[in-house]
Amino acid sequence: MPNSIVVQKYGGSSVANIERIKKVAERVVGYRRKGHKVVVVVSALGDTTDELLKLAHGITESPSERELDMLISTGEQVSVALLAMAIHKLGFDAISFTGAQVGIVTDRSHTKARIVDISADRIRKELKKGRVVIVAGFQGINPDQEITTLGRGGSDITAVALAKTLNASSCEIYTDVEGVYTADPRIVKDAVKLSRISYEEMLELASLGAQVMQARSMEVAKKFSVPLHIRSSFTSKTGTIISKEVKAMEEVLVSGVTMNKGEAKVTICDVPDRPGIAAYIFKDLAKADINVDMIIQNISRTGYTDMSFTVPLSELNRCKKAVEGVAKKVKAKDAIYNSEIAKVSIVGVGMKSHSGVAAKMFEALASKKINIDMISTSEIKISCVIKKNRAEDAVRALHGAFRLNKKH
Amino acid sequence: MPNSIVVQKYGGSSVANIERIKKVAERVVGYRRKGHKVVVVVSALGDTTDELLKLAHGITESPSERELDMLISTGEQVSVALLAMAIHKLGFDAISFTGAQVGIVTDRSHTKARIVDISADRIRKELKKGRVVIVAGFQGINPDQEITTLGRGGSDITAVALAKTLNASSCEIYTDVEGVYTADPRIVKDAVKLSRISYEEMLELASLGAQVMQARSMEVAKKFSVPLHIRSSFTSKTGTIISKEVKAMEEVLVSGVTMNKGEAKVTICDVPDRPGIAAYIFKDLAKADINVDMIIQNISRTGYTDMSFTVPLSELNRCKKAVEGVAKKVKAKDAIYNSEIAKVSIVGVGMKSHSGVAAKMFEALASKKINIDMISTSEIKISCVIKKNRAEDAVRALHGAFRLNKKH
Repeated sequence: MPNSIVVQKYGGSSVANIERIKKVAERVVGYRRKGHKVVVVVSALGDTTDELLKLAHGITESPSERELDMLISTGEQVSVALLAMAIHKLGFDAISFTGAQVGIVTDRSHTKARIVDISADRIRKELKKGRVVIVAGFQGINPDQEITTLGRGGSDITAVALAKTLNASSCEIYTDVEGVYTADPRIVKDAVKLSRISYEEMLELASLGAQVMQARSMEVAKKFSVPLHIRSSFTSKTGTIISKEVKAMEEVLVSGVTMNKGEAKVTICDVPDRPGIAAYIFKDLAKADINVDMIIQNISRTGYTDMSFTVPLSELNRCKKAVEGVAKKVKAKDAIYNSEIAKVSIVGVGMKSHSGVAAKMFEALASKKINIDMISTSEIKISCVIKKNRAEDAVRALHGAFRLNKKH
Repeated sequence: MPNSIVVQKYGGSSVANIERIKKVAERVVGYRRKGHKVVVVVSALGDTTDELLKLAHGITESPSERELDMLISTGEQVSVALLAMAIHKLGFDAISFTGAQVGIVTDRSHTKARIVDISADRIRKELKKGRVVIVAGFQGINPDQEITTLGRGGSDITAVALAKTLNASSCEIYTDVEGVYTADPRIVKDAVKLSRISYEEMLELASLGAQVMQARSMEVAKKFSVPLHIRSSFTSKTGTIISKEVKAMEEVLVSGVTMNKGEAKVTICDVPDRPGIAAYIFKDLAKADINVDMIIQNISRTGYTDMSFTVPLSELNRCKKAVEGVAKKVKAKDAIYNSEIAKVSIVGVGMKSHSGVAAKMFEALASKKINIDMISTSEIKISCVIKKNRAEDAVRALHGAFRLNKKH
C-alpha cells in the first residue's frame, strides 16, 4: 500500500561495489515511485569488515572490543553515504545516518551489543519530508556515547528493530540468494524455494547451519512478530516470507533439510555414573565458554557411562583442555575426539502433529547405508550425526524421502 | 615538564600502514614514560581520503557535501582505533574518540566547517585516568548532530584547537619532512632547516605554496597563540618552532624562498580607465567565486589601462568565462591568459625594518637574466611573477643572494 513504511536491508554482497550500489538505489527509488516511505538499512561494502579486522589483527592478536567497534562501524558508514549519493543521482531525496544519529541505543557490551531502545524521531521527521532514510546497520551507541556493534547478523537486527519501531508494513531482507530453500541447491539439484516458513523453523534452520539469516536476528523478529521477506537483490522475484506459524504450515510435514559440517564430537568414556555427574561436567565446560550442542548419555549398566556431545570445530582445541581437566576430576577413563562428523537435520512445524517422521528419516539414511552416530530431537526438528563424507548423500536422501521437491 | 599536556598530530603519511602506526605508538608511549599527558590527533591512513572520494565520484560527479562528510570522516575513525590498539599492545592505556564524542562542535557548513566550540571534558576525564587520548582529526559535529569535516589541513586545526582548549604545553605537528626549510631542499641543495619562524612568515610561506602546513591551520594557531613544533615522525630530531614574532627573528632579513607554479596570469587589455572600474571587475569575478591573488594595474596615460591578476590554474577555465563577460561589459579590448608563469617569493619579518631587500631581489634575478613580469609586496614578503621554466633557477639565485645556507 502506498504511503506505508517499507524497511529494506541490503547485505554486503548487495553493495559490494559501485555498480551494485547503483542497482540498490534504483530498486529503492522504484519503491518511492510507488509512494512508499522507504527506510534502508545497509551493511558494509563486500568484505570491508573482514579487511578492517585484518588491519586490527596486524596490530595485535587481541584488540580491545571497544576499539574494534570504533573501527568496524566505519564500514557501514561508508555504505550509507554512498547509497545516499546514488539515490540523489537518480533525482530523489535521501539522507544517511549512523546508528548513533538515529538513536539506536544498545547495552554496554561491545562487538555483540543488544539494542535496548530506538528513538526513531529523526527518521520519522525525514520520512515526512519525503526523504529516503538510510541507516547504517550493525551499529548503535551505548548510554556512555560509545559506539557499539551488534555482532554477526547485526544489520538484520537493525532492520527488524526499525521495522518494529516504525510499525513498517514490511521488512525486506535482500541477500544474494532468492530465499529459503528446502535444501542447499548446490547439494540438492531439485531443491525448491519455500514461499513461507515460520520463525521457529527458520530459527532451527539458522542454528543448524543454513546461512541465510543468523539465529539472533530471527529471534528478534519472532519476539516482535515482524514478518520478514527474504529475497534477492539481483532479481525482482518474490522470495520467502518468514512469519508466525499459520495453520497451513502444519500441513507440511518437513520444510527443509540442512546440514552442518562445523562441529566435532567429543566422548568422555567410562565416567563413574553418579547423580549430578552430567551437571558437574557441563558446568565446567560452560565455565571454559565452550558452546556445547547435542548431548547424549548412554544408559549405564556397569556403573560407568559414556558422555558424548558436539562442539563447534573452531572451539575444539579450547575444548580439549577443558575436557582433559574435567575427565581427570571425575575419574573418567578417557576422552575421544572426532572432527570427521556432520549433522544432518530435518525441520518442520508439521512434525508436532505427525508421528513416524523420525522413523522415516532413519529409514532413508539406512537405505543409503549411512550409519547414525547420535540422534537429537526437538518439537520441530530431528538431527542425526553421521560421517562427514556422507553428509551430501544424506541431505539428498532425506530431500527425496520427504518429497520436498514436490511441495510449496 | 612531566605531567604537562602534549598535543601531537600525525599526518596521513605518518600512519600510512600498520608498521608506521606501531612506530607512532612507540613515540607516544615514550612521552607517557616521561610522565606527559598525551593527546594524539590522527589523520586518515595514507591516501584513504582520496580513495573514499574516488568511490563517491564513481557514483556521482557532484556528491552532496553532507554525505561526503559522512563518508570521508570514516578515514580518521579507522586511524584512531588502530592507534589505540597499537598503544594497548605496548601495555599502555589509550582510548580513541570521534570528533563528535569529544564535543568538537562546528558551524553548519559541510566539507569546510569551522570549529565553534570544544567541550573537552571527556578528554580531561580520560587524561586523569592516565590514558592516552586519541582524537580523530579533521572532523566535528554541528548543532544538528550532523558529522562535518574541516577541509584541507583539518587535522592540524583539530590539534591546534585542542592544544588551546587544554592549555597544552606544546603542540607537535608530525609530518614527513623534518621542519620548515629556507627553500625546497629538492630545488636548493644547501637549503637549511629553520629552527624558529613566526606565524606571519609561515602564513606567507603556506599561502605561497610551501606544503608543510595549510594557511588556515596557521591562522588558527596564530589567533590562539599556540606555538607549533613541526617535525618528522621518522626521526627524533627537533624540527621548526612556529611562534609569535620575537625580537631575534627581526635580525634575519629573509627567512625563506618559495615558489608556486599553480597560478595563471590574466590580463584584461585596454580597459577604459574610469573611477570604480577595478571594483566593478573584481566584484564580478568574486561573484563567480574566483580566488584572485596578485593584482597589477598599470598607470594609464591614454585613458585606457591594462589590468593583470593571477588566479589558481585549477580555476582558469571558470575564470575565462567570467572574464569574457566582464571584459565585454566594461568595453575592454581583449583578454590574454598565460599559464606558463611561476611566482617566486622571499619572506621574512626582518624586511619590515630593513630597506633594500626588494632591490637585492630584483638584482639577483637580473643577474640570471630572469625577467620579472609582475611584482607584489607585503610587509614581510616580496613576490615576483616570472616565466615558469626559470622558477627553479630563480629560487636558487635568491637563496644564494640572501645567503640563506649560512643562517639559523
